[in-house]
Amino acid sequence: MYRAPVETIAFTLNKVAGLDAALEAGTFGDLDRDVVEAILAEAGRFAGEELAPLAKVGDGEGAKLEGAVVTMPAGWRDLYRRWAHSGWNALTGPIHYGGQGLPTMLSVAVLEMWNSASMAFGVGPTLTMGAIEALDKHATAALKHTYLAKLVSGEWMATMNLTEPQAGSDLNALRTRAERGPDGTYRIFGQKIFITYGEHDLTDNIVHMVLARLPDAPAGTRGISLFLVPKFLLNKDGSPGRRNDVFCAGIERKLGIHASPTCTMVYGDGFEGAEPGAVGWLVGEENKGLACMFTMMNNARLAVGIQGVAVAEAAFQKALAYANERRQGRASSYAGDGMAPIVHHPDVQRNLLTMKALTQAARSICYACAHAIDMAHHTKRDKARYWRERADLLTPLAKAFSTDVGVEVTSLGVQVHGGMGFIEETGAAALYRDARIAPIYEGTNGIQAIDLVLRKLDLSEGEHVHYYIGELAAIIAEVQESNHPGFGHTGDLMDDALDVLTEVTGHLQRLLLDGKTDEVLAGATPYLRLFSLAAGGAYLAKSALAGNDADRIALCRFYAENLLSEVVALRGRAIDGAASLLDAGKALASD
Amino acid sequence: MYRAPVETIAFTLNKVAGLDAALEAGTFGDLDRDVVEAILAEAGRFAGEELAPLAKVGDGEGAKLEGAVVTMPAGWRDLYRRWAHSGWNALTGPIHYGGQGLPTMLSVAVLEMWNSASMAFGVGPTLTMGAIEALDKHATAALKHTYLAKLVSGEWMATMNLTEPQAGSDLNALRTRAERGPDGTYRIFGQKIFITYGEHDLTDNIVHMVLARLPDAPAGTRGISLFLVPKFLLNKDGSPGRRNDVFCAGIERKLGIHASPTCTMVYGDGFEGAEPGAVGWLVGEENKGLACMFTMMNNARLAVGIQGVAVAEAAFQKALAYANERRQGRASSYAGDGMAPIVHHPDVQRNLLTMKALTQAARSICYACAHAIDMAHHTKRDKARYWRERADLLTPLAKAFSTDVGVEVTSLGVQVHGGMGFIEETGAAALYRDARIAPIYEGTNGIQAIDLVLRKLDLSEGEHVHYYIGELAAIIAEVQESNHPGFGHTGDLMDDALDVLTEVTGHLQRLLLDGKTDEVLAGATPYLRLFSLAAGGAYLAKSALAGNDADRIALCRFYAENLLSEVVALRGRAIDGAASLLDAGKALASD
Repeated sequence: MYRAPVETIAFTLNKVAGLDAALEAGTFGDLDRDVVEAILAEAGRFAGEELAPLAKVGDGEGAKLEGAVVTMPAGWRDLYRRWAHSGWNALTGPIHYGGQGLPTMLSVAVLEMWNSASMAFGVGPTLTMGAIEALDKHATAALKHTYLAKLVSGEWMATMNLTEPQAGSDLNALRTRAERGPDGTYRIFGQKIFITYGEHDLTDNIVHMVLARLPDAPAGTRGISLFLVPKFLLNKDGSPGRRNDVFCAGIERKLGIHASPTCTMVYGDGFEGAEPGAVGWLVGEENKGLACMFTMMNNARLAVGIQGVAVAEAAFQKALAYANERRQGRASSYAGDGMAPIVHHPDVQRNLLTMKALTQAARSICYACAHAIDMAHHTKRDKARYWRERADLLTPLAKAFSTDVGVEVTSLGVQVHGGMGFIEETGAAALYRDARIAPIYEGTNGIQAIDLVLRKLDLSEGEHVHYYIGELAAIIAEVQESNHPGFGHTGDLMDDALDVLTEVTGHLQRLLLDGKTDEVLAGATPYLRLFSLAAGGAYLAKSALAGNDADRIALCRFYAENLLSEVVALRGRAIDGAASLLDAGKALASD
Repeated sequence: MYRAPVETIAFTLNKVAGLDAALEAGTFGDLDRDVVEAILAEAGRFAGEELAPLAKVGDGEGAKLEGAVVTMPAGWRDLYRRWAHSGWNALTGPIHYGGQGLPTMLSVAVLEMWNSASMAFGVGPTLTMGAIEALDKHATAALKHTYLAKLVSGEWMATMNLTEPQAGSDLNALRTRAERGPDGTYRIFGQKIFITYGEHDLTDNIVHMVLARLPDAPAGTRGISLFLVPKFLLNKDGSPGRRNDVFCAGIERKLGIHASPTCTMVYGDGFEGAEPGAVGWLVGEENKGLACMFTMMNNARLAVGIQGVAVAEAAFQKALAYANERRQGRASSYAGDGMAPIVHHPDVQRNLLTMKALTQAARSICYACAHAIDMAHHTKRDKARYWRERADLLTPLAKAFSTDVGVEVTSLGVQVHGGMGFIEETGAAALYRDARIAPIYEGTNGIQAIDLVLRKLDLSEGEHVHYYIGELAAIIAEVQESNHPGFGHTGDLMDDALDVLTEVTGHLQRLLLDGKTDEVLAGATPYLRLFSLAAGGAYLAKSALAGNDADRIALCRFYAENLLSEVVALRGRAIDGAASLLDAGKALASD
């Protein structure tokens, strides 16, 4: 069973991602370490004792659809209500509407815990939090007044409605339409697919955030508007009243996160003789919906990255426990009687250390991204811009690298369990199934890589990425200066990795300037991984320097001397691989 | 839906693995190309038209247990009987017992097709074929006379019973016991787990091959004997008669291959007032059972490697079809109207080419291994020894590399499908679930890597591995000499990869001589992958040289310029990684 690694999470927040320094500088007002520690400890308790025990029933039963009604697995409704009642949904919400206004850093830390305990649970509130932020930033005072308090408390949940059958990564193809009503409201018509928590029985109302086109909207993404469409229209007193014309027409049978209902939502099909059309309210300006949605999407991308970290952590814990329990064969490092626990076999150690080190690298990148978001909110002018760019740069790394790590680590977790790993009862397989969605949703990892190379490398005229690499290099210089023998070749290897990162970054920037977009796109995925491995290594080094304990230093050295060598392979792919890829790729198209 | 790549399979057999040359030399008697082609074409038809359509019902329904009776999914009993009736089970069986005595190369080729269509189907007959070989080699004439014809025809199926709860990778811990009966038979008592196709309704009898200990047996693996235990004892006329005391006590709920019943088998618990004890017959000599079982296991390992190839091929076909159909966004290489098929996006091309190239590399290694097995059977003295060593060397590569490729490629296959990949209906997720067992069973891939470094590097006093690398180098020399511009940097890069392979091989051999076993074990897994990537690259080059067509050359170049760079990363892990691994590994053990 999952136990929240509260100490590791706190250490990573404080010493690696910069929470300590921000607290000392008073960046977050009167928030202090005691409060932070109390929150993390209590979240850890809730995740381990209340949430984790319901994960298996969630996976086994899944969400069920009958008619247009979705029933959540046994115990989940009560679980969600206990969770919201404890204030967890309100952690980062605006204070004015009952939120606690705490930093994103805390939010991602507790989000990691919910998702380690159950990814199917963790994904739900994420969408509500995104909607809260979009409404807080873009909605009218009246809409805010009507909806925000209920969403902040978690009494109601929210959804994001982007995808349509023909429009996934490419929102240009969006067809859902909105018509202006006489009273300032709108009527929405269309079908949305893959809507996470689109329908369920956890809350008495559900608030859908829906992208749609007005009749006179320009083509493409400049003609998309954002609407708020509640499941139940509200009575004068704000309580849920008449049913709105939005219904769940199907839920998907999925590989994993079975308890998370993935819904097809139909807007405006008409019912019970009512005039067809789902009643919606505009959020932000007409045709500016995509900008509003991006507010939600960026944070959702970080939240999905955290899911990768979370599922990897859960897989590591499970595999480590099994490897300490299961005995097979002899091992030189085991002095006891009979068969050795398999944790003593070097090949098993390689799997476990790889899992642990990659998880910690991904966690560090995600927390650093959260730190940048917080700093952007809490600083002004140039500094705010600097931190906003940092958050923009780190978001694709946080999302794609961490979720790839989630898949790799859960796969290794199955492997450490041997035959038992393939048996569903063990739970390792469920993590492997759950993990697979995270590289896909909120923008596939391929899209993240494209975002990184096309939109993030030219921040501050191409300088920001080099500022960041410089900061990583300063950490490695400290490793070199420490002369601590426990680091082995860490300093040199990480230095080399950053040199490669600098080289490939410059190479891609030049290709961009030369308009060689296809070559850049061909190298995008290996570059994102290269960047993340180098950055993750620097963060492991920062952790080892700050903790100065043998275990952290040994893990950092393992990362440098075993995992970081992949950087050289990725350099080859990112720089020299494009020509052969584009050439061989021609044979794939059947048109 | 899967379509067998008959042309690619035939080409790989003939031009890469050496079937053409063997046929011309008359190594396989009067077998000729026409017969080979006819067999492959008909197997391809059966796999695509009859087997593949039943894969989904197999996955959805799974095998079901009621009491001790296992019912296979709808249509499977009939499917199996059609398959056996067509003679597919008898392909490689001994001619004396109704088999066709065809080479292993043909067997693995058709096995690939069965497994691409349905891994859950393909795994069953593999065990029967292993039992046939073990009985043919080691059983008494009477046992052979009684059982072989029925097993060769497929009228009955067989199982391998090794694993017990406490004895998986480590057979020393085996506890199932056998007692000598007064009539030359034995009575077997004990429990076996993870028994593939241990119980089912496909055939009227099931023949269990069971490892057990005699009361006076030495401890450890030198005290294990092999027994034949039929589900039904036979009447005088050889027909199934009285029920034997072996029953299925449970089947596992698994991540994948749902239609393959994975059984807990209980031997000798007594029933219906009968004297307890499952009646068994000794195969081979007492206490020499492991050697007999190894006959089955080596071939089973290659067969599992083929499963990795097969599931990867199925995933590639599915992803390629989807990528040609699904349209999103714009792409410079697409001249048509509207959104481009995603196969035109470079990042999607990277995924698809990686899938295709890895699949072909793994296929080549497996077929080369099959060729070596055939050559060992059909040659004499020194040559036979040479080919036996080659088969021994390639078996762990074929098993571990191919099954890791199966997992990687099916994961990429899900990714290419985007959100649809996570939906079970699409079928990409089922391949991802099925693929995950192959790195585990028949010796985990960690065990394969240990087998490679501890038992295969010293074949012919450490020379054989270098003969093999030399043969690979000769292929690369041909690439260099060809001066074909389509190869790009292939020649140099593959040459470098073989240099690295030679270096790491020598390094590990020296460590072994120095008794530094833990360092060798620490590097085993990266070494196996490094070896396989280099060998697979050479085979892609051989294929490109033999075919001399633009597509094969372009794929080979993609492999060299994109995938082969991993070799450098693996060198670091295999040579420089051990110290940090063994150091950091200490912190993992809780004892």
